[in-house]
Amino acid sequence: MRLPDIFYRDVQRRLVERLGAAGFDGMLVTHPADVAYLVGFCYAVTERPVYLWVGTTGDLLLLVPELDRDYATAQRVHAEVVTYPEYPGVVAPEEHLVRHLGSRVALDAAVGHSGGLSVAARDRLAGLLPGVRWLTTSAVADLRLHKTPEEVELHRQAADICDRMLAAGRELVTDALRRGGPLPREGEIVRHVVGHGTDLVHERYEHVVYTTKLAGGLVYAGPNSAHPHGLPSSRRVQVGDTLILSLGAAVLSRFVESERTFVVGEPTPDQRRYFEVAHRAQEVGTQAMQVGRSCASVNAECLDVVRDAGMGQYLRHRQGHGIGVQQHEPPWVEDGDPTVLAPGMVLSSEPGVYVPGHGGYRISDTVLVTPSGPERLTTYPRSLEESVIAP
Amino acid sequence: MRLPDIFYRDVQRRLVERLGAAGFDGMLVTHPADVAYLVGFCYAVTERPVYLWVGTTGDLLLLVPELDRDYATAQRVHAEVVTYPEYPGVVAPEEHLVRHLGSRVALDAAVGHSGGLSVAARDRLAGLLPGVRWLTTSAVADLRLHKTPEEVELHRQAADICDRMLAAGRELVTDALRRGGPLPREGEIVRHVVGHGTDLVHERYEHVVYTTKLAGGLVYAGPNSAHPHGLPSSRRVQVGDTLILSLGAAVLSRFVESERTFVVGEPTPDQRRYFEVAHRAQEVGTQAMQVGRSCASVNAECLDVVRDAGMGQYLRHRQGHGIGVQQHEPPWVEDGDPTVLAPGMVLSSEPGVYVPGHGGYRISDTVLVTPSGPERLTTYPRSLEESVIAP
Repeated sequence: MRLPDIFYRDVQRRLVERLGAAGFDGMLVTHPADVAYLVGFCYAVTERPVYLWVGTTGDLLLLVPELDRDYATAQRVHAEVVTYPEYPGVVAPEEHLVRHLGSRVALDAAVGHSGGLSVAARDRLAGLLPGVRWLTTSAVADLRLHKTPEEVELHRQAADICDRMLAAGRELVTDALRRGGPLPREGEIVRHVVGHGTDLVHERYEHVVYTTKLAGGLVYAGPNSAHPHGLPSSRRVQVGDTLILSLGAAVLSRFVESERTFVVGEPTPDQRRYFEVAHRAQEVGTQAMQVGRSCASVNAECLDVVRDAGMGQYLRHRQGHGIGVQQHEPPWVEDGDPTVLAPGMVLSSEPGVYVPGHGGYRISDTVLVTPSGPERLTTYPRSLEESVIAP
Repeated sequence: MRLPDIFYRDVQRRLVERLGAAGFDGMLVTHPADVAYLVGFCYAVTERPVYLWVGTTGDLLLLVPELDRDYATAQRVHAEVVTYPEYPGVVAPEEHLVRHLGSRVALDAAVGHSGGLSVAARDRLAGLLPGVRWLTTSAVADLRLHKTPEEVELHRQAADICDRMLAAGRELVTDALRRGGPLPREGEIVRHVVGHGTDLVHERYEHVVYTTKLAGGLVYAGPNSAHPHGLPSSRRVQVGDTLILSLGAAVLSRFVESERTFVVGEPTPDQRRYFEVAHRAQEVGTQAMQVGRSCASVNAECLDVVRDAGMGQYLRHRQGHGIGVQQHEPPWVEDGDPTVLAPGMVLSSEPGVYVPGHGGYRISDTVLVTPSGPERLTTYPRSLEESVIAP
């Protein structure tokens, strides 16, 4: 499970160009997703920091804890790898970093870092290199906005896995209905579909690595589905329930999400009404994801479908967000994000309608922005007729 | 699943006292574990920030995204709850925060925050409240070092669940051996034990909430077990393998971990040798966890057992770490941490021996420091005789 070497050489070259053009001497990359993106190192995140130095002369240095040395070697990371013994250490990891960097960093260098760097880490670095100017930059985030063709192919493969997870979840409930036995609990459905997705990844790929997970999901039924971000419970699905399967999968940490709302048994008029509005908003919002449109305008058009149907009080969140090496990343398909859509962006489209005490309705696809219009990478059926689970 | 109201009143009072004594006018709490600890709000962490203001006059204000409003209400959070619409927002969450705080924060106030606050968030806050002095403080982390009796009881309950997860994992392998069929894959064991632990939590408690997870685990066999932090693979366990089950569980987000090393079939002389050294180091290191000892000295005594056995080259990490509302938290049982052990501290004790190409050996218990000595909360058998899996 690797991207071709040319991918890493290319993103590193583009980052160096951006940093140089912006007057930086280098950048200290600290977010695990940025590290995976730039040098292909995937690791279990703990309190032990990992630092990647990218100098505008093109030199890269990756500092990892001794614990991960063999693991970094096995992944054939695209940077020189050095280690520090342990955390917190008699000598702090940042001090090891400064020693390893040596003369690579001039005493008065301008060094970029992402806004996510912790105040504590920046204070330690500033104390060790008092002449250096530490400046926030979105250089890596900006690169990550635009997926390369190799990355799009990984997202496409993850989408197939995610769609199959939806099918497996639906089948579990359908089989239980047919047997006439008790229906599965929310948590059992999660476990079943996550296991299915994880197995598929291992069947299809060798040397599987990932940042946070291979497959994941939230499942809510009945009134629980009215909490967009609640936690799966031990409640059994019942006939009459609205049932949301909100699933995600990743191939080499290129994420997708695919979410569907099902109705168990014959839908009531209320269920039909809420479902159709959520479905129409998702259709309108997805079609609006055109090159040149702003995220804010797409979101407004999408959520207006819900508001115009008189259901504005049931909105709880924006239309969607970017997806890439993280499940949620810029751009944000929301009123406050003016980002203009461009080819190669990958976004979720997932407006929701949440009726307290009754249930929630959310359909989400992972959408690729292309010059010829939005392309849904996730393709599992989404109409109400196709979303009724009956024996 | 709740702690008594008095727990929250008490920790809030103690925090306010500490902040006041240190000259702060208040603290802005931003880490999800700190928020769960202080006001009992557990939520799915995304890019949407949650801010908890704790004023030294005793007023608390919790700002959550609109998405989580119902969820916070359902959890009967111990603070006044206000919301902001969405992220990133036409108006940033930090601006909503400042508006909600109003006159609670004096123009020239001294406001504490943890070192984990991001540079971007602090820069935004500093821009909105330019007269305020923003200062890093470990006030919440210091409180969290010492677990209250109510918290220790939760850790104890989690330990029972974690020990049962170990038993379930062992049984899965034993049953497969007895049937003479193929042994389970690493990933299958993970799924089985995590499901077992999750089910137990749901059987035993109502209104289950958690911060990051209820139960989790890493399972490695054979040569994979030589990577202390590798990712579970699709490799099947084989007779002759060293097998590490590294499991965790939480009750109301009070974590424990329990890790055992098994040998599948009759141990070889090498397996005996490595096992016995890892086992002895864990025994010596655990017994060293006495009130008044420093973390650094305990760690040294523990790892010296491995070094004195001529296996220093197989060490990859420190003896252990604190456990509480996070799986890993201070203090660190490592050379660089001078923290003196005190009653109520909960620590992992988990030295490891990792032989590249062969396998790894690690036994971990969650240990409570008491005036009468260390008490292991996890009690699953750990001797080699008891750790041989045979049909």
